[in-house]
Amino acid sequence: MSTKYKAPVDDYVFLLHDVIAPVAPHALGEMTRDDTRQVLEQAARFFEEVWAPLDGPADEEGCHFEDGVVRTPDGYRAGYAALCEAGWNRVSAPEEFGGTGLPELIGQAVHEFTASACNSLGLYAGLTGGAHATVSRNGEPWMLQYIVAPMVEGRWAGTMCLTEPHCGTDLRLMKTRAVPQPDGSWRLNGTKTFISGGDHDLTENIIHLVLAKVPDEDGRIREDLSTVRLFLVSKRVVDSETGALGGPNGVVVAGVEHKMGLKGSATCTMSFEHALAYPLRESSQSGGTQRKTSAGMSGMFDMMNSARLGTGLQAVSSATRAYGHAADYARERLAGRAAKAEDRTGGAADPIVVHPDVRRLLLKQASFLEAARALALHVRTLLDEPDEAIRANRSAIGSLLTPVIKAFFSDRSFESANDAMQLMGGHGYIRDNGVEQLVRDCRIFQLYEGANGVQALDLVLRKLPAAGGRALADFLDLVDATASEAEQQEPLRAYAEALRKAVQEIRASANWFADPARDPYDAGASSSDFLAMMGIVACAWMWLRMSNVALPLLPHADNKQFLERKLELARYWFARELPLVFALRERVETGAACLMALPADQF
Amino acid sequence: MSTKYKAPVDDYVFLLHDVIAPVAPHALGEMTRDDTRQVLEQAARFFEEVWAPLDGPADEEGCHFEDGVVRTPDGYRAGYAALCEAGWNRVSAPEEFGGTGLPELIGQAVHEFTASACNSLGLYAGLTGGAHATVSRNGEPWMLQYIVAPMVEGRWAGTMCLTEPHCGTDLRLMKTRAVPQPDGSWRLNGTKTFISGGDHDLTENIIHLVLAKVPDEDGRIREDLSTVRLFLVSKRVVDSETGALGGPNGVVVAGVEHKMGLKGSATCTMSFEHALAYPLRESSQSGGTQRKTSAGMSGMFDMMNSARLGTGLQAVSSATRAYGHAADYARERLAGRAAKAEDRTGGAADPIVVHPDVRRLLLKQASFLEAARALALHVRTLLDEPDEAIRANRSAIGSLLTPVIKAFFSDRSFESANDAMQLMGGHGYIRDNGVEQLVRDCRIFQLYEGANGVQALDLVLRKLPAAGGRALADFLDLVDATASEAEQQEPLRAYAEALRKAVQEIRASANWFADPARDPYDAGASSSDFLAMMGIVACAWMWLRMSNVALPLLPHADNKQFLERKLELARYWFARELPLVFALRERVETGAACLMALPADQF
Repeated sequence: MSTKYKAPVDDYVFLLHDVIAPVAPHALGEMTRDDTRQVLEQAARFFEEVWAPLDGPADEEGCHFEDGVVRTPDGYRAGYAALCEAGWNRVSAPEEFGGTGLPELIGQAVHEFTASACNSLGLYAGLTGGAHATVSRNGEPWMLQYIVAPMVEGRWAGTMCLTEPHCGTDLRLMKTRAVPQPDGSWRLNGTKTFISGGDHDLTENIIHLVLAKVPDEDGRIREDLSTVRLFLVSKRVVDSETGALGGPNGVVVAGVEHKMGLKGSATCTMSFEHALAYPLRESSQSGGTQRKTSAGMSGMFDMMNSARLGTGLQAVSSATRAYGHAADYARERLAGRAAKAEDRTGGAADPIVVHPDVRRLLLKQASFLEAARALALHVRTLLDEPDEAIRANRSAIGSLLTPVIKAFFSDRSFESANDAMQLMGGHGYIRDNGVEQLVRDCRIFQLYEGANGVQALDLVLRKLPAAGGRALADFLDLVDATASEAEQQEPLRAYAEALRKAVQEIRASANWFADPARDPYDAGASSSDFLAMMGIVACAWMWLRMSNVALPLLPHADNKQFLERKLELARYWFARELPLVFALRERVETGAACLMALPADQF
Repeated sequence: MSTKYKAPVDDYVFLLHDVIAPVAPHALGEMTRDDTRQVLEQAARFFEEVWAPLDGPADEEGCHFEDGVVRTPDGYRAGYAALCEAGWNRVSAPEEFGGTGLPELIGQAVHEFTASACNSLGLYAGLTGGAHATVSRNGEPWMLQYIVAPMVEGRWAGTMCLTEPHCGTDLRLMKTRAVPQPDGSWRLNGTKTFISGGDHDLTENIIHLVLAKVPDEDGRIREDLSTVRLFLVSKRVVDSETGALGGPNGVVVAGVEHKMGLKGSATCTMSFEHALAYPLRESSQSGGTQRKTSAGMSGMFDMMNSARLGTGLQAVSSATRAYGHAADYARERLAGRAAKAEDRTGGAADPIVVHPDVRRLLLKQASFLEAARALALHVRTLLDEPDEAIRANRSAIGSLLTPVIKAFFSDRSFESANDAMQLMGGHGYIRDNGVEQLVRDCRIFQLYEGANGVQALDLVLRKLPAAGGRALADFLDLVDATASEAEQQEPLRAYAEALRKAVQEIRASANWFADPARDPYDAGASSSDFLAMMGIVACAWMWLRMSNVALPLLPHADNKQFLERKLELARYWFARELPLVFALRERVETGAACLMALPADQF
């Protein structure tokens, strides 16, 4: 019953070469359409054949924690080695560090395939990528050679150690300490929890990037964030002169979590005991929207933003897998007869795809995930804008959309997995059929890398007001430009008009938040609904962009069915999803009044 | 971290004696407020102390299937025996069969506690209750004495065997056959799947109610539903003269499912091999809204309706458990500081209940579950109306609301469990903390007893058009009456007005469905959204009824905080949930146009 993974190569070729390249020609470097297809088909084969079969059994088996060491499920070592051997772990890593040097967007496609095929194994590679990018941006020169290179190669892995048992979002409460030693080195002590890949048997060493407080100039540990710094702590000591790997470095696995899903990914509690630690430097070009109090954490913020975009991609990957299961089931399962006689197959029963409520579930899934995929690519191009004149502008839009991608995508991905399950009825609840694992696995996307409520606050409290609301205005200008283009094509005019109305709702809500007379609780009360508005409009924007491209291609296209399908998915999104923006705006404006009256002890 | 179960005794006392009794005095018989409290406090103690501790370990352990026999998790046998010993399995079963004979509404409260404490164990008792009610309604006289009595007592259990591997909703495709023998007996052959409690070690016998096709007058098996009948098949042969239990009866467990959740409940594939079967009779008073083709299945429909209401109650029970976890966490977990200085506790961080986005999640959960609990009780009184003059009218409203209770409650219960998890961040994803089990367990409510899409079709295709839309009109009259009452109290006028507007939306949508020019696909395309509208309005109705009652009680009440809390929950529902009805109506009216254009092979 379980559906085989089929990587969306055609969709990526269309998105990259028909949708993205015309507006961001730099983004694909010298890659031709054929090059892209060739690379992605190779990647697809690898993940479909080598990785996807690992996913189900690893969920059954889980990770093992014995004698202080984590062992990953059967097949993970070989799968990880094959990944690194084939180079799929470093598609867009810089060639100077041993990467393949392909465009980021190709790396992003491969990242999606990785997470679709086996997300719990892919996480080890994904976190390593985030970590070596941070080290190469914020590390000392010796680290580039001796730390980054083996991480890019895949011999070493990486983690991000932020959360502590008593503090996740609120880093002020952090207890982990790093203290300078008389010899000029630093030693770090503390306990970090929920560390993905904190330990495992896939690589010979693990580089932990650890957030810790350091003493201020008076030797005191402050209560605020001003003394927080990011440190590099290697599982095994690394000789900074030669790169040679030495003995253990006071990094102890204190426990491994039993989780709802992603069971092949070891989520560890890590105890750092007088571990040798290296402070990372500040980013030279940190984004403009960071809190003033976080001057010491720019490296962490860069890493978090990249992890948030990565989470958004994982959400797309799960939604893709879930849709695959649902579509196969809908075409194969027989029950009932089509409401119109002309659509009946003539058998005892028709495939359930004839029923409108089943199609509703399928179209809801597909129209979300394909818009999300397009948006993730588009945001990447905004963040990597090469033209200096507009770089700051584009990068601010990318930062604005980062929490939207993380939270809206993960919310909708969970809905998609559940819609797939729903379509399968009781069969969806049975473990062998694959979808219930997706539901359990993808639930974490709403929680990790900052729970979605925190993303919504980031959007409303930091990204919206930054630079007088400039990023939102610039974003909406891009959306407007797409609407203007659509108005040139008769069949798309109604969409353009609908999108402009939705944009007005966003503007109105943003003005509501910006009102200086707002109750201080209003922002938090309405942040999640506003984030959903942004997500729906951003996806509608993508559907209009894709439609703008697909419509003129249609008459002479080889892939007519592909393009017609895109237009139908756009139709669904505009008919059934975009109108929700109006209800959400109303809800935004109810604010905090109906939330705050009840005394805390009455909950 | 895991929160102890606390049964909602106060809420039931309020609902039963302040909200329900004034409009349905018959419903509580002679029970005084003190009687009710005493019974429910006893029940609460039992389920909190004896049953709740079984829930987590059973999820870890699951059921065992060895040598063709199912063994339930550790502690289930003792827990089940204690349940029957104390009589909590038969609270409202008729005294003539050994039941306690308390009012149905008291039984319903106990049913909620049962499912909250340990739903996978409670299911064995719940299914037994549904089965013996069916046998006592549709069985032969000898069955009342020899089958019903041991089931009521708890020595025997019961199941419902409808689904087959290739057919769930579409019973036309059923392959199970029952054939009359020369000696006048019937023998039944076939395979049934997804049978909850199909086998277990809790009781000495199991009574299966099995749907099967019988030969028509020409000895042929028809393709339609006209020859479907409901049969009683006992796991062990029962002597109809003496009630003595004999040897095995061709009932074989072919397998046990590995499921996402509810792991303590054995979900079996049952093979009936020439099993001795007894046809049940038609119900004497079957509901007016059943399909003509199902004349042979009235017993099954009665049983299904009761199972659907039971599923709605289970949804309330899970939402209650989830809210308990979330509220405890929100009051105890420290992170960030209140946006208003006057609300800060002065510690390094405040409990997260100070943050509006956290309160939003709590209020959304509480305002759903308390309205749902009230509605479930109210629908019970409609279905049990003693006044013959309005019985048909009330019962039709109850039937109209049955799919709403099943589907809307289960959808929102799943959302509630996920909201509880979301509020806990990464901690919610960890198995030890209890909420992730709730998410997995309660997911089945949307799927079993007819997937929610099927409930929506039942609502729109059968319940709405029945008797020219009479049931809906009568339901909305009840809602209007509550609004009129609310208009007498100044603070509730705005709610009354909002509810009347929402009622207009329901009427408009119903008219849209009733339009004879509708595309045949429109009903299915919009059924799920319409069901959600009905659920939201029905809950708003309950909030207005509760407010009508609470407001005048407030000045002189002992339980002032309890009543004030009710008014705040009402406020939330009217501010944030009721307005969704307008967006849903818009979506209803988009119909099937955006769903049906894509060829089936393009999914």
